Amino acid sequence: MSKISGIAASAGIAVARAFILEHPDYTISKNTVADVQAEVAKLDDALDKSRAELQRIKERTLAELGEKKAEIFESHLLILDDPELINPVKDKIREEVVNADYAMNEVSAQFVSMFENMKSAYLQERAADMRDVTKRVLNHLLGIHYVSPAEISEEVVVIAEDLTPSDTAQLNRRYVKGFTTNIGGRTSHSAIMARSLEIPAVVGTKNVLSQVKAGDLVIVDGLSGDVLINPSEAEVVEYTAKQEAYNLQIAEWKKLRDEPSVSADGKHVELAANIGTPNDVTGVVENGGEGVGLYRTEFLYMGRDKLPSEDVQFNAYKTVLENMNGKPVVVRTLDIGGDKELPYLDLPKEMNPFLGFRAVRLCLDRQDIFRTQLRALLRASVYGNLRIMFPMIATLTEFRAARDLLLEEKAKLQAEGQEVSDSIQLGIMVEIPSTAVLADQFAKEVDFFSIGTNDLIQYTMAADRMNERVSYLYQPYNPAILRLIKNVIDAAHAQGKWTGMCGEMAGDSTAIPLLLGLGLDEFSMSATSILPARSQISKLSAEDMKTLASKALEMGTAEEVVALVRSIGN
Amino acid sequence: MSKISGIAASAGIAVARAFILEHPDYTISKNTVADVQAEVAKLDDALDKSRAELQRIKERTLAELGEKKAEIFESHLLILDDPELINPVKDKIREEVVNADYAMNEVSAQFVSMFENMKSAYLQERAADMRDVTKRVLNHLLGIHYVSPAEISEEVVVIAEDLTPSDTAQLNRRYVKGFTTNIGGRTSHSAIMARSLEIPAVVGTKNVLSQVKAGDLVIVDGLSGDVLINPSEAEVVEYTAKQEAYNLQIAEWKKLRDEPSVSADGKHVELAANIGTPNDVTGVVENGGEGVGLYRTEFLYMGRDKLPSEDVQFNAYKTVLENMNGKPVVVRTLDIGGDKELPYLDLPKEMNPFLGFRAVRLCLDRQDIFRTQLRALLRASVYGNLRIMFPMIATLTEFRAARDLLLEEKAKLQAEGQEVSDSIQLGIMVEIPSTAVLADQFAKEVDFFSIGTNDLIQYTMAADRMNERVSYLYQPYNPAILRLIKNVIDAAHAQGKWTGMCGEMAGDSTAIPLLLGLGLDEFSMSATSILPARSQISKLSAEDMKTLASKALEMGTAEEVVALVRSIGN
Repeated sequence: MSKISGIAASAGIAVARAFILEHPDYTISKNTVADVQAEVAKLDDALDKSRAELQRIKERTLAELGEKKAEIFESHLLILDDPELINPVKDKIREEVVNADYAMNEVSAQFVSMFENMKSAYLQERAADMRDVTKRVLNHLLGIHYVSPAEISEEVVVIAEDLTPSDTAQLNRRYVKGFTTNIGGRTSHSAIMARSLEIPAVVGTKNVLSQVKAGDLVIVDGLSGDVLINPSEAEVVEYTAKQEAYNLQIAEWKKLRDEPSVSADGKHVELAANIGTPNDVTGVVENGGEGVGLYRTEFLYMGRDKLPSEDVQFNAYKTVLENMNGKPVVVRTLDIGGDKELPYLDLPKEMNPFLGFRAVRLCLDRQDIFRTQLRALLRASVYGNLRIMFPMIATLTEFRAARDLLLEEKAKLQAEGQEVSDSIQLGIMVEIPSTAVLADQFAKEVDFFSIGTNDLIQYTMAADRMNERVSYLYQPYNPAILRLIKNVIDAAHAQGKWTGMCGEMAGDSTAIPLLLGLGLDEFSMSATSILPARSQISKLSAEDMKTLASKALEMGTAEEVVALVRSIGN
Repeated sequence: MSKISGIAASAGIAVARAFILEHPDYTISKNTVADVQAEVAKLDDALDKSRAELQRIKERTLAELGEKKAEIFESHLLILDDPELINPVKDKIREEVVNADYAMNEVSAQFVSMFENMKSAYLQERAADMRDVTKRVLNHLLGIHYVSPAEISEEVVVIAEDLTPSDTAQLNRRYVKGFTTNIGGRTSHSAIMARSLEIPAVVGTKNVLSQVKAGDLVIVDGLSGDVLINPSEAEVVEYTAKQEAYNLQIAEWKKLRDEPSVSADGKHVELAANIGTPNDVTGVVENGGEGVGLYRTEFLYMGRDKLPSEDVQFNAYKTVLENMNGKPVVVRTLDIGGDKELPYLDLPKEMNPFLGFRAVRLCLDRQDIFRTQLRALLRASVYGNLRIMFPMIATLTEFRAARDLLLEEKAKLQAEGQEVSDSIQLGIMVEIPSTAVLADQFAKEVDFFSIGTNDLIQYTMAADRMNERVSYLYQPYNPAILRLIKNVIDAAHAQGKWTGMCGEMAGDSTAIPLLLGLGLDEFSMSATSILPARSQISKLSAEDMKTLASKALEMGTAEEVVALVRSIGN
């Protein structure tokens, strides 16, 4: 047995066999082969194995997820049997006396490039399918054993260097009991996703990938940040007990589900949830969320080959609004760029993507993308209590430009006879220092603020939150951060507006007393943090926390602030 | 004739023939050759040409720059004639029947790798020489026409995609009359270097490199940002006149050289200069600088193969202090990382280097590097009026750690009987938002602040100042920036300390009225900006500017602030 420590990224405990997730290396070299016939036979064999594999996946998907999801594998099977692809590969092997993997890769690349250059969206999608099928055949030719995360079909703990947003989008909660990665921190996207999916996770272990073999028994303790590899029987018993105790506390918290969020001295706040997809609403309702404080719309744009249509978006927004049943839903417009890339947008590489062309900066430039999203939101607005906010606003000029586009699309829709709600609140994310400093000027023009602490902290401290070498500077409790938060809240209140927070800090038990004291109106967090937060707030006096916060604002370092909060026995 | 517009990065006008600076592509493939003897002859020919070339450069360097600078070319000639290198290359050609460039490159790579792995600094330097010589021979073998910037020997305008710090370090002011680049902005390092060398420059033209051929006549107008390619005779006359008018204004400004810097209503400020090397002091004195507000020590670490020794540093600091003749010299400790790399430190690539492991963050980790610099500074302190400041301070904890290292080294030196000044002021750069927000806490512990606006603006606006797609957000006049500056100045004054500014903003004629109004004590800028700034300040009323600044602080956008400043007819 060995034990590794990492960062506890998502609560809960998982005990299961390890599944190693690694992206294979498809470097292919051209070789002259001795026996052309044998090479063609190798290809046929790889095609047969791929076919059997796809058939299996198709049937399982059909049974578990329905016809629509299974269609994609049907079209992969068609490609595999297409003589227009396979014959040229065989010809190439015979004529050029080369290895099958090289021939397959070359011919497929020609098709992909041809499809990609066509204007038809349908053919462009075929390029992606062709790429998938080719990889599957190459796996067999090159002896690569690769199972994509979507194909996991038994209970496992996923072990990886890191999980990309597209990997996490494919994880099936039914089988993936937990995961652990070499890199990442509490606010990396994989960690946020894990909390949203309620999958126990430990990230930033530095070396778990090299320590674990496929099939090892692994315990992931998302409460302490420990990962146990091939634990003893006694440890399995111990952790199973720990898991049960955790489940009991969860049950205790669940009793607060339909209670309001009120401090010990009667101050009311709103506890809302951050979501990524319409499916997440179930978790919000189950955990007693009083609203959605942040609906990240990026997932609509990810894991696909082209921009989502207005209707695709409309349906997603409508579903969330309807399922939240009149409770407020704050939708953040597209925040792409930075570490979140969309291959089909083909954005240029940047030297410092976190300080680059992303979110509203991109949307104000690519108005086609932005207007489509705004129209979908406006059309959905009649199905619930919609609030819209723009991410990465750095100047009033940007806010005004984005607002004007929204008003233009609203007028157009109304001219088309489309019904649009007249009570949509319009706000901004406060995640750039300039906006926090100038909050009084913004407060005159917006309906609300939502403080995005993940980015606000990294910009205010000038420290990349994904970079382990400067992670000591990612300090939510630094008095400079608290002062900026106070400035935003006070500016909003002076204009009769409200301030929320949708960064990870809003659900952090050390931060909650300070935020309550600073006067934060809405706390938006992972759904699973809502009930613990409600429990914590019910025991705190808002008046006392105001005094606590005033002291913290005059301190010099984050360490002093943490000691102060700990001193109240929180 | 054609005209391109870019960003005016360094004032003045240059008219000269174009020199195209491109780094060649040394991708080498292995080929079987038909005639081994011909291949060996090709190598001999390339060696002869390289030898003749080196001989010429050596003689010219000897005549112009002296024996010491010429030595390097003598050792290159020795390498070129070394049978231990050349014979194995010829053997390889003969035995493997391969092309000469491949053989040369392979054998040289073996030597380089062998030298690099040895502990001796002398042999490690030989690796760099070997690499240089190999490139020269490959140029002839591959038919690459490449002249390094150090070898320019006639009056030219340099045309490049961008200039790296190492390129600019090699530019000879005698021959390089101006330069223009595709990328970069007013605060890119090449622009800052150009102002320091007083070379007219236009950067960020996007496409000048593709428009100009070697030998084209080019006019670089560093006042307007225009670049004229193959101008008409009339234009040459017009721009020559413009150049003369500019020289006349310069002469007018020169009269203020020994005058104090005083506003129209008698408020005294200090105008200092930013420098990069001891040689720059001449320019500071010529331009009437009242001190050095920023001595960037990075250049000491650049363009070499290993860290500079304590003595090398001591001599540089001593020279600057002595030549400034008792006037204050603010030395910034090493600010490496970000876009400034040191190959021999072998730092890992970062996703967002501007938010990464750089400056004091690196120095607190690599204490060997930091302590050497601090010792050199302390030893030099007795030769003038030394002030030390730490860059990229984000927290009080970091400042205290850096200060403690300085005090430790001071105590050690004193114990060794070394004399150290007791009146060294110790300050910090304020270039991270957290530090600007928390300035009152810092002001209790530092002797002074120097606001680094280049970084402060990029972090406050979350916009990479080198990224053209977000350059619209690099807003020195944004009211949020002005508020942070005011907060820093007020915090210093409340503790009886002073605040300087060493970012480009300090020398900007639109910013100067605002900064005077905000109460800035010291303005540090390119030496060539000092006299225009002194002239401008002498015409402004500090009291009126205070009113102006108060208005600006309550505005919503940078555009309004610029309009306000313009309204006073500045």
